[in-house]
Amino acid sequence: MASLTKKELKKKYQEYKEQGLALDMTRGKPGAEQLDLSLPMLDLVTSKDYKTVAGADTRNYGGLDGIPEMKAIFKDFLEVSSTDEIIVGGNSSLTLMHDTISHAITHGFPESKKPWGQQSKVKFLCPSPGYDRHFSICEHFGIEMITVPMTEKGPDMDVVEKLVAEDKSIKGIWVVPKYSNPTGFTCSKKTVKRLATMETAAKDFRIMWDNAYTVHHLSKDQDELANIFDACKEAGTENRVLIYGSFSKISFAGAGVAAMGASLENVNWMKGHLSMSTIGPDKLNQLRHTRFFKDFKGVEKHMKKHAKIIAPKFEAVIEILEKELGGKDIATWTQPKGGYFISLDVPKGCAKEVVKLAAEAGVKLTAAGATFPYKNDPKDENIRIAPTLPSMGEIKLAMRVLCVCVQLAAAK
Amino acid sequence: MASLTKKELKKKYQEYKEQGLALDMTRGKPGAEQLDLSLPMLDLVTSKDYKTVAGADTRNYGGLDGIPEMKAIFKDFLEVSSTDEIIVGGNSSLTLMHDTISHAITHGFPESKKPWGQQSKVKFLCPSPGYDRHFSICEHFGIEMITVPMTEKGPDMDVVEKLVAEDKSIKGIWVVPKYSNPTGFTCSKKTVKRLATMETAAKDFRIMWDNAYTVHHLSKDQDELANIFDACKEAGTENRVLIYGSFSKISFAGAGVAAMGASLENVNWMKGHLSMSTIGPDKLNQLRHTRFFKDFKGVEKHMKKHAKIIAPKFEAVIEILEKELGGKDIATWTQPKGGYFISLDVPKGCAKEVVKLAAEAGVKLTAAGATFPYKNDPKDENIRIAPTLPSMGEIKLAMRVLCVCVQLAAAK
Repeated sequence: MASLTKKELKKKYQEYKEQGLALDMTRGKPGAEQLDLSLPMLDLVTSKDYKTVAGADTRNYGGLDGIPEMKAIFKDFLEVSSTDEIIVGGNSSLTLMHDTISHAITHGFPESKKPWGQQSKVKFLCPSPGYDRHFSICEHFGIEMITVPMTEKGPDMDVVEKLVAEDKSIKGIWVVPKYSNPTGFTCSKKTVKRLATMETAAKDFRIMWDNAYTVHHLSKDQDELANIFDACKEAGTENRVLIYGSFSKISFAGAGVAAMGASLENVNWMKGHLSMSTIGPDKLNQLRHTRFFKDFKGVEKHMKKHAKIIAPKFEAVIEILEKELGGKDIATWTQPKGGYFISLDVPKGCAKEVVKLAAEAGVKLTAAGATFPYKNDPKDENIRIAPTLPSMGEIKLAMRVLCVCVQLAAAK
Repeated sequence: MASLTKKELKKKYQEYKEQGLALDMTRGKPGAEQLDLSLPMLDLVTSKDYKTVAGADTRNYGGLDGIPEMKAIFKDFLEVSSTDEIIVGGNSSLTLMHDTISHAITHGFPESKKPWGQQSKVKFLCPSPGYDRHFSICEHFGIEMITVPMTEKGPDMDVVEKLVAEDKSIKGIWVVPKYSNPTGFTCSKKTVKRLATMETAAKDFRIMWDNAYTVHHLSKDQDELANIFDACKEAGTENRVLIYGSFSKISFAGAGVAAMGASLENVNWMKGHLSMSTIGPDKLNQLRHTRFFKDFKGVEKHMKKHAKIIAPKFEAVIEILEKELGGKDIATWTQPKGGYFISLDVPKGCAKEVVKLAAEAGVKLTAAGATFPYKNDPKDENIRIAPTLPSMGEIKLAMRVLCVCVQLAAAK
């Protein structure tokens, strides 16, 4: 598309502004149509029928690590070898991740000489752009964040390997290994292997493997992710990786079921902490999930229905980006095969301005910088686009506004 | 009843032993009949109807502190002044209490000069006998526990006032204010007032007010508990008290809803931490609860049904204790008007022996010492009896065995 003059852009922007829009592209929330897919689940546990396959009463206390049939699904979901390597939690994997870090701060991991909170300095590697809530957890606990470039093959492993080998205060790394938030990139087989085998100066180094989008493909053209747990076991580093996943973007965002997969030593460590804070998770909700999905194949099948709903939304975003910004050499964007986001890079120093312009025209975007540690995008260029929640009409309109804002900011 | 000779007791014990019993009186778990009372709840949120009164979609993310109608019930339940003073959590008040302490360790309270974990010594007062899981949390976080006598009017306030005024490393006290675990005692009006008004050397002193049994009366003859939040507000100490409660022993033990009530400053403090670890609690389960109970009056009404089921069990325990041990001057026991436990004191130095003898005869009791800090009952005399879960027949049999064991141990 031919470039518009600055005057034309300003006029267009003014027109949008006068429409009094109120569009929200900020968070990775499923839309109502997606939530509808799991509605039958609500009718599967009734007053007549609330027992597990083995006959346990899910209403009472107990079952610290989950009911057997839920653990079985998570075993395949998180790709561990045995249900003993699974702890089922409550409704949020973010809680499991937060609590893991919190326990490390107050008590340390089995290999830790001292609790992390008693060490003079604890650092974490943060491949960026990445997930803002991971970074918030680090900041909250005073863990120093080191930005590592995120590449199409996952974290830049040359940088990662060098840093973790040298600095024993680097205790971990956040990784969204598949359809990463926000880039949509998936770790290559080689990246997975290097993460499993790299030398770390810290004996209690942990990979926070947030496999949030493992089954969240947009089409049949899917990324493959190598099994890091197997790679770690092979390398004798099986305590290194903690794997997290949840049903939040599969069943109900607020009432899903989360789990952690890890080595027996890590699982026992986590159970020890968990037994201090709960007598057990909500087993009735686990039962709803296992009755609805039956097994992991059921989960994969279900996700095809999600893809049908959200793939056109992703396509619309890409289409408008291409039509409005393509060939203009002012922006690049990812074209993910799955996940919940599209990552847009605008000219250096322009992201904040774009987000501000869009907000003033009634289009709410994730704050510029949010995808980097300390909310500070050093190049001020990255914008996260979350297309799942708005309707198709809203998305198209919001994207057109956004593209005008990008061009306006670039022209300044 | 006339005393049996040691020989007769031994014979009786042997007879029980030969029956190969397997009875469990260990934990305060509701029985199936109690859980049945809330079964209709499972049919109240279906695929057709999952929105709050205000029309919010409970399936999606959000609502960090709970849906409005759930907050309204907890406002009356925890006796605070406004729904703004309520945070609704997940299924467990133990989690909220654990997390409160954990946040204090890593970050401190608003008035804390340093996080508790960075202070050389942090101590807690533990009225005992008390709830073992409170004590476990302290031990887990390295908080030194100071045993304070539990009286019929609550914690011995002469001791409490003296200690907290003198020692600024004493940061808090655990209180189960009503039908306390395991004694069944309720704090008197004066105790509540003294807790609210006492001078504490620590500026960030907290009362962990675990009001677990506030509506758990056994009959119409009920204890009254004064409102500590009002007392604190009046004394200008409203940040001092954190009030916890849950539906675990009202609806489903594993799938209830928990909440914390506190001053706005404490609520904001907690929300700040909560926003790091979750996007929100399970709102669908809150909706089940609010539709079933409607309001706090509905909760109170419902508890009368529980009382009908469990009061006879408590009566059976008391009756057998009186019949078998009454007038023998070897044991005393509480006769609570509510709650989940009966507290039995056997001759000094005999509790462990009694529990051991009972176990060998197939009757599992809570470990002796569990009701004291560090699992150490200095007089080795207290035994907690939990009569809710077993059937009436099991209770009677278990109590007869227990009474023989008490007499045998006393005779040694």
